[in-house]
Amino acid sequence: MAIKTGEEYLDFLRETKPNVYMLGEKVENIWDDPRFESTMKIVSQNHDFAFEAANKDVAAVQSPLVNEPIRRLSTHLQTTMEDSLLKLDLTRDIANRRFCAWCGSNIQTLLWAVTWETDQKHGTKYHENMKRFVELMQKNDWDSSLGKMDAKGDRSVRPSKQQNYPGVRVVKKDAKGITVSGCKVHTSYGPCTPIISVMPCRAMTEEDKDFAVAFWARTDTPGITMIAKPSPNMEHIDMPMQCPMSSAFGIVEGATFFEDVFIPWDQVLLCGEWDMAALFPYYFGTIQRQSKCSCLAGHSDLVAGIAALVADVNGVLNKSHIQDKLTHCMQMAEIAQGCAFGAAAAGKMHPSGVFMPDSLKANAGLNYIKELTGEHIQMLHDIGGGIIVTMPTARDYQNPKLKKLLDVTLAGNQKYTTEERMRALYLCRELSSTEFTGYYMGWGVNASGSPHTGHILVRSHYDLEYRIGIAKEWAGIGESSEWPGHNKGAKDWAGN
Amino acid sequence: MAIKTGEEYLDFLRETKPNVYMLGEKVENIWDDPRFESTMKIVSQNHDFAFEAANKDVAAVQSPLVNEPIRRLSTHLQTTMEDSLLKLDLTRDIANRRFCAWCGSNIQTLLWAVTWETDQKHGTKYHENMKRFVELMQKNDWDSSLGKMDAKGDRSVRPSKQQNYPGVRVVKKDAKGITVSGCKVHTSYGPCTPIISVMPCRAMTEEDKDFAVAFWARTDTPGITMIAKPSPNMEHIDMPMQCPMSSAFGIVEGATFFEDVFIPWDQVLLCGEWDMAALFPYYFGTIQRQSKCSCLAGHSDLVAGIAALVADVNGVLNKSHIQDKLTHCMQMAEIAQGCAFGAAAAGKMHPSGVFMPDSLKANAGLNYIKELTGEHIQMLHDIGGGIIVTMPTARDYQNPKLKKLLDVTLAGNQKYTTEERMRALYLCRELSSTEFTGYYMGWGVNASGSPHTGHILVRSHYDLEYRIGIAKEWAGIGESSEWPGHNKGAKDWAGN
Amino acid sequence: MAIKTGEEYLDFLRETKPNVYMLGEKVENIWDDPRFESTMKIVSQNHDFAFEAANKDVAAVQSPLVNEPIRRLSTHLQTTMEDSLLKLDLTRDIANRRFCAWCGSNIQTLLWAVTWETDQKHGTKYHENMKRFVELMQKNDWDSSLGKMDAKGDRSVRPSKQQNYPGVRVVKKDAKGITVSGCKVHTSYGPCTPIISVMPCRAMTEEDKDFAVAFWARTDTPGITMIAKPSPNMEHIDMPMQCPMSSAFGIVEGATFFEDVFIPWDQVLLCGEWDMAALFPYYFGTIQRQSKCSCLAGHSDLVAGIAALVADVNGVLNKSHIQDKLTHCMQMAEIAQGCAFGAAAAGKMHPSGVFMPDSLKANAGLNYIKELTGEHIQMLHDIGGGIIVTMPTARDYQNPKLKKLLDVTLAGNQKYTTEERMRALYLCRELSSTEFTGYYMGWGVNASGSPHTGHILVRSHYDLEYRIGIAKEWAGIGESSEWPGHNKGAKDWAGN
Amino acid sequence: MAIKTGEEYLDFLRETKPNVYMLGEKVENIWDDPRFESTMKIVSQNHDFAFEAANKDVAAVQSPLVNEPIRRLSTHLQTTMEDSLLKLDLTRDIANRRFCAWCGSNIQTLLWAVTWETDQKHGTKYHENMKRFVELMQKNDWDSSLGKMDAKGDRSVRPSKQQNYPGVRVVKKDAKGITVSGCKVHTSYGPCTPIISVMPCRAMTEEDKDFAVAFWARTDTPGITMIAKPSPNMEHIDMPMQCPMSSAFGIVEGATFFEDVFIPWDQVLLCGEWDMAALFPYYFGTIQRQSKCSCLAGHSDLVAGIAALVADVNGVLNKSHIQDKLTHCMQMAEIAQGCAFGAAAAGKMHPSGVFMPDSLKANAGLNYIKELTGEHIQMLHDIGGGIIVTMPTARDYQNPKLKKLLDVTLAGNQKYTTEERMRALYLCRELSSTEFTGYYMGWGVNASGSPHTGHILVRSHYDLEYRIGIAKEWAGIGESSEWPGHNKGAKDWAGN
Repeated sequence: MAIKTGEEYLDFLRETKPNVYMLGEKVENIWDDPRFESTMKIVSQNHDFAFEAANKDVAAVQSPLVNEPIRRLSTHLQTTMEDSLLKLDLTRDIANRRFCAWCGSNIQTLLWAVTWETDQKHGTKYHENMKRFVELMQKNDWDSSLGKMDAKGDRSVRPSKQQNYPGVRVVKKDAKGITVSGCKVHTSYGPCTPIISVMPCRAMTEEDKDFAVAFWARTDTPGITMIAKPSPNMEHIDMPMQCPMSSAFGIVEGATFFEDVFIPWDQVLLCGEWDMAALFPYYFGTIQRQSKCSCLAGHSDLVAGIAALVADVNGVLNKSHIQDKLTHCMQMAEIAQGCAFGAAAAGKMHPSGVFMPDSLKANAGLNYIKELTGEHIQMLHDIGGGIIVTMPTARDYQNPKLKKLLDVTLAGNQKYTTEERMRALYLCRELSSTEFTGYYMGWGVNASGSPHTGHILVRSHYDLEYRIGIAKEWAGIGESSEWPGHNKGAKDWAGN
Repeated sequence: MAIKTGEEYLDFLRETKPNVYMLGEKVENIWDDPRFESTMKIVSQNHDFAFEAANKDVAAVQSPLVNEPIRRLSTHLQTTMEDSLLKLDLTRDIANRRFCAWCGSNIQTLLWAVTWETDQKHGTKYHENMKRFVELMQKNDWDSSLGKMDAKGDRSVRPSKQQNYPGVRVVKKDAKGITVSGCKVHTSYGPCTPIISVMPCRAMTEEDKDFAVAFWARTDTPGITMIAKPSPNMEHIDMPMQCPMSSAFGIVEGATFFEDVFIPWDQVLLCGEWDMAALFPYYFGTIQRQSKCSCLAGHSDLVAGIAALVADVNGVLNKSHIQDKLTHCMQMAEIAQGCAFGAAAAGKMHPSGVFMPDSLKANAGLNYIKELTGEHIQMLHDIGGGIIVTMPTARDYQNPKLKKLLDVTLAGNQKYTTEERMRALYLCRELSSTEFTGYYMGWGVNASGSPHTGHILVRSHYDLEYRIGIAKEWAGIGESSEWPGHNKGAKDWAGN
Repeated sequence: MAIKTGEEYLDFLRETKPNVYMLGEKVENIWDDPRFESTMKIVSQNHDFAFEAANKDVAAVQSPLVNEPIRRLSTHLQTTMEDSLLKLDLTRDIANRRFCAWCGSNIQTLLWAVTWETDQKHGTKYHENMKRFVELMQKNDWDSSLGKMDAKGDRSVRPSKQQNYPGVRVVKKDAKGITVSGCKVHTSYGPCTPIISVMPCRAMTEEDKDFAVAFWARTDTPGITMIAKPSPNMEHIDMPMQCPMSSAFGIVEGATFFEDVFIPWDQVLLCGEWDMAALFPYYFGTIQRQSKCSCLAGHSDLVAGIAALVADVNGVLNKSHIQDKLTHCMQMAEIAQGCAFGAAAAGKMHPSGVFMPDSLKANAGLNYIKELTGEHIQMLHDIGGGIIVTMPTARDYQNPKLKKLLDVTLAGNQKYTTEERMRALYLCRELSSTEFTGYYMGWGVNASGSPHTGHILVRSHYDLEYRIGIAKEWAGIGESSEWPGHNKGAKDWAGN
Repeated sequence: MAIKTGEEYLDFLRETKPNVYMLGEKVENIWDDPRFESTMKIVSQNHDFAFEAANKDVAAVQSPLVNEPIRRLSTHLQTTMEDSLLKLDLTRDIANRRFCAWCGSNIQTLLWAVTWETDQKHGTKYHENMKRFVELMQKNDWDSSLGKMDAKGDRSVRPSKQQNYPGVRVVKKDAKGITVSGCKVHTSYGPCTPIISVMPCRAMTEEDKDFAVAFWARTDTPGITMIAKPSPNMEHIDMPMQCPMSSAFGIVEGATFFEDVFIPWDQVLLCGEWDMAALFPYYFGTIQRQSKCSCLAGHSDLVAGIAALVADVNGVLNKSHIQDKLTHCMQMAEIAQGCAFGAAAAGKMHPSGVFMPDSLKANAGLNYIKELTGEHIQMLHDIGGGIIVTMPTARDYQNPKLKKLLDVTLAGNQKYTTEERMRALYLCRELSSTEFTGYYMGWGVNASGSPHTGHILVRSHYDLEYRIGIAKEWAGIGESSEWPGHNKGAKDWAGN
């Protein structure tokens, strides 16, 4: 079986020797460095998860490519509506239970589609490279980090017009491969992955063609440097009672620098076909944003659960204003997940054999939930109360004299011990009032594209002209028909 | 073929002689009364529609029961996810093009399911009656109005505890049938339908069992009286330029009174099985609210189209604040439709053979869009401008002297004639500033159940306990597990 | 005493013979025409009001100009903060009690200030004309309608660049006066006022100087034609039970056309001083929008009262979700009124002797409440229920047979008779579901300027540079100081 | 002169020896402990501030009690509307420039009023004690922390009914004074103040009378223990570039425990007069919430400035969607400040000689802005971009090799150096994505009372009955009058 257990995977990772910096200093041995331990926890759990009785039928799936079970969320190509629905359910639940569900499968799927289209149009062989990449990923049960967003310099100027555009570009090509330089930001988990997948983040013009490049690489390829940002609340993970989430798992973030990195041709997925560059963010904005709806639905579930728990330890769970706020949170989750499912139901097969959801519904749903991220934080403060900001630390509670004072003082609903109430308050606090809040907000507001990007996508994909036409018919402007819209072709019915 | 053309259907309707009052006086001959003409337009178009080249493949569907094509939205039983998706697409588009898409199919489907369950539990024969009813509806291509909402008297008191509960109840039973009395409100289109389907609107206790009654009846059954409310803007439909929607179709609303009405047993669908009463509003709250999402998505499309048209005639379509407002409107439509599709994708087969959508997603999506109905009106005023309220009437424009003044004065974007601009403004005005606005709001806010009802449903169906459990595991409260939610059964994955 | 009773004022109005059209036909005798009766009710009540014991001390005020009591809201110049606060309180209360509080005083005040500034800059004598106008208004207790908004043609093109700009402009000047032509739209109440005050609605350039014109005129001046739009729900005012507001008072709207109208010099308030044109909308956007905050606060009070009443007749006033919605409505009122008061408290004396509120607070508060107008309508539907759209008409209730049915059927909370419940529902319906709704929305959303205009004003008046400077100091960008903002001059403290 | 410079004040503080714990250990010498240094910065600046040329005329005010200049925001009794307006302006500006404006004056003012009322009703002498307290505060230029919120135990049970109610209560009384025990939470700045003012936080019944106690005490009175929570981001203040706010000032929070603390009678301000207890939170909910409006207006200004700066360094300040978001933020500030000013304008003199704002407007405005706190955080993420979460640390930037990479990579708008862009991003990050965010949210959402408390206050103070009466008159229900509301007494006009 191709799937590695968490332990097997961590063993495998030790073979990778990435060049990583943290807090200004080179990391000597990342796999034994305690600052990466919490991130490795979540990395390895993503493997173990496929072995658990409760979910193995969903989390693992038989791959037709390698003819073995593989992990559905990490390396699988999405090929049917049912597959998509299973992924969305799984994503929501893991996002609730473990914050991050891993979404590598989306990246595989979109690269599969774009390389296919590129080959069709340009007669290239990128899709074969992609197929080989997928087989390697699946056989070896690798994970890949994502190098998509270029550092952008002056946003109002095209890459080719900037003197020092900092994004990734081809600096040399020869018979064996290409050489690339430049920087990709937001490479989440990067230092703890063996592979990085690099792709364009925007539409290009012919002048920008050097920046129209996609490939995969081992993270320890010579010339790659990662600056890793410490996982949130790392300074406090010795107080797990106070930092229950950060002590359970970590998210090392970072930026990845390429300095004359050589990539052999069989790892190249695009090189110079500038007219295809826009397809990467387009399909990303479809399949990844659908998936993000479920991720944020799971986060809404997380907030609903924490808010309800903290209301209960405070003794106010049954108050009508609390119930109303919780209901609002439940609705956020169901609307986001509803739109994700709806995007699947309105999806279509891509000629390359993968299943693509409906971009309009995925983006509308994601815009909805993204813009409510701040409300989640607001709700946790509103229901948690001022105490989540002012309460003594877990270390105070370890001092027996102070513990005695606090046990009386911070008692709440008698169903719970004071310690249990404090634990619930600390959990609420961690999500709403610490460095972790920044990650929560970042993953809600900007991950998978900013809200404004989503608005642009909806605006450009919605058929407004058709609706203006109907309005004209209602108003009696222009050529009339028996009733509005009656000339609409039959082909439109099924497909929207 | 079972489907009647609009003309055939209107001919058929003439055989029905309902007892109808309007504006305090008995309506002598409804089918020749001009006050019902606009309503009959929409009624007949719902039939014609199935013959149009553009949509006949979707609007008409082969019935396995009668083995003939029938109208999908009116008399068809929904039996697959695909069927549901086709209905939702059709509903949205017709709601955009013709305001009301007709949703009789939902009522048939829910009665099918509830009568089946009742027979299973109580050993009754209602489902056979239902089957016969469906066959009659399909063979004859009838439409039915809906008598669901009881007049409720004092809402804080159960039916059986009120001295004069005004809802429908059984007053007599004998070998041949039952005799019912009482009132159902909100019987939209009632006077222009040959059939009315009556069902309970709330959960009942044993004491309320006389009110636990469902049946169908011809609308001209002795003892039935309808008070019809004139269709909106009826006074102005001689100025179609000013009332483009009301002059194109009408919506007679009304209340239906039963005074000792005899219903033969083979038309009875529930009689006294009080424990089943709650299922009617429950399944209504599932399938009808899913459908309502699409109806209101279509209305959002309508508003987007009108707002864009009026912005264009005003010469401001490209302003960024206008584009933002239009985008917001597009998103409303896509989110509502996304949730409707999502509810289908998460739906399940009912053992009676019909397909039931997911109640949670349908309700969350509907609550979302319902609560934005006022924003639609706001947007039309905001984009239309003060002129939609203060502009001269269409009759002024018929006066040549005034027309000359107005042609100069009300000119706008040069792409359009002044008359075209006025037509667009009148359309915007009719939807946002007339009696029609009341219908628009009513269909948005309260039709298919008030927003509060939807909130209650979400609150009661969402599995909050599961999420509190996950929060407890994060916080370290109670029995711990390796990681949150890990005991969740595999069965939950697929079904949410 | 200068103040006329309502009856005296109506007698006086008979002397005016304006040239008015309605529904395409010339109105022969406006003062005896029943279609203007409801509008004259509100016009005359504005006079009577100053005589009522309850409010005469506020509604009437001693004028230093004419040394007699005059009506505070109609003809008074606002000269102190206290005066402003009294006006705002009165405006809110009358808007609640009588929908429209009349705001002529604001127009007088702004014309006073602008003519003063024009004379200072240009050495003209407009302020003397203005003073004479105010004295005439006060001595005769006249009301004036407002001709501010030009018909604008193609909004993207300046007046002088349009071939047929339809706004008002000077077409001739001679020793005796000026001759003007063009159209002003939105002249509310116009046909029922003896005077119209005309002013520019936008900034002008030198090329536009012919359009930079302000003056006052009798409404029956030769060459003036008004197209009057019937007051809302006029067709139904024979059913006052169903139309309680429209039958109590009316709002004739209209457009006013000037065709070579001669205006003597002593009635001219601006003629060609194009650089002053922008001051008219600027001061209007200050004093009138402050006043509009109170007007809409009063409308929020009206909605709160109606919603509470209808919740009570429905028997659900004490439900928590109803209480929450009502509280939201109360807050809207208090926030709008709070900002109006705040704008007064932050106001300043204009050198011409009138008191000007703070533009930023007035506009921020007005933007807030304007954008909630649709929510008012939403709330009335939400709390009123579907019945406000579907219920039988008042004429049905006059039929004894139907009355008997309805008395049972529409009974609600036992505190009220069925007729009382119906009256409350009809009131809720009229505000939310009829042509009156259009007026409600129009007065909320666009009257005194569209929301977008208000946003522009806030954006352009708020001192963002100062706050960016503080952010820079926090960030340590640029010249540092001991702590952010510390170089800010003392002069700013008091004035904001 | 009574006002101490910051340095003088810190010298004075050294005389106080409070019993303080932090992170589970006793703090040996708080005044030399680096963990309190940042908090002492803000404490001392509040003194220095009154000496700065720019604002001394506002920040300092002559006290009629001690006949010397005192600090307006800290120890002054508010006695006029003008005084209130000056405070609000100052509060907003300092909240923008220095995050916390100090609001001790409000506490002094409310205690002044309540002790006066208590003496009037109960013949007690608390007001004399209060006068002495104010004189001491003013003469010595002390600051006081606030002990208002009891730890509450089970919120659904009254204090007297709980076995171990943890709030502060009188445990003994004798001729010399009273002895108190129990805990007050949320004592912001407590360990760094010489004085604490203690008062009830809720209405009481006769059984609760032991909890109806108010007094002041030196913070080093025997029996008082404070658990201090470290100021936010304290672990990182050695990276001031990354933590510009936390390194500039701190906010030690904490809980204060009273264990048999003796308070002499002349420091007692309430003892057992349970019927007066509700007045403390009532007047707090009036004057403190008005002040909080300005505090949060200043925070909105802060967010507007930071968001604008970060948009500028990112090169997108002029994009329309950015401008719209900034305008929304400006409006938040102006609405909150507008309502604060409005509450002053509608305020009244209290018979004790202090000036009390209007509670309804203060609360409505505060509820408005409180509920937008999460939107502030959302906006900073939206405009800042994902980079604020993923960007390398300030320590990476200190490594010359990495600095070289980052200088190219993180360059943005060419107006700024890369370091300047990074500084702006770090500022945005600190406010939105760190432990500081928790304080920001806590001060926005819960400080001065939770949003729900504010809603309750609005609901209970708004005269809904009057508006229901007007609705009844419109509807024609009950006794009619010529027009709605006409029986309202004249006394109501001026006062709202």
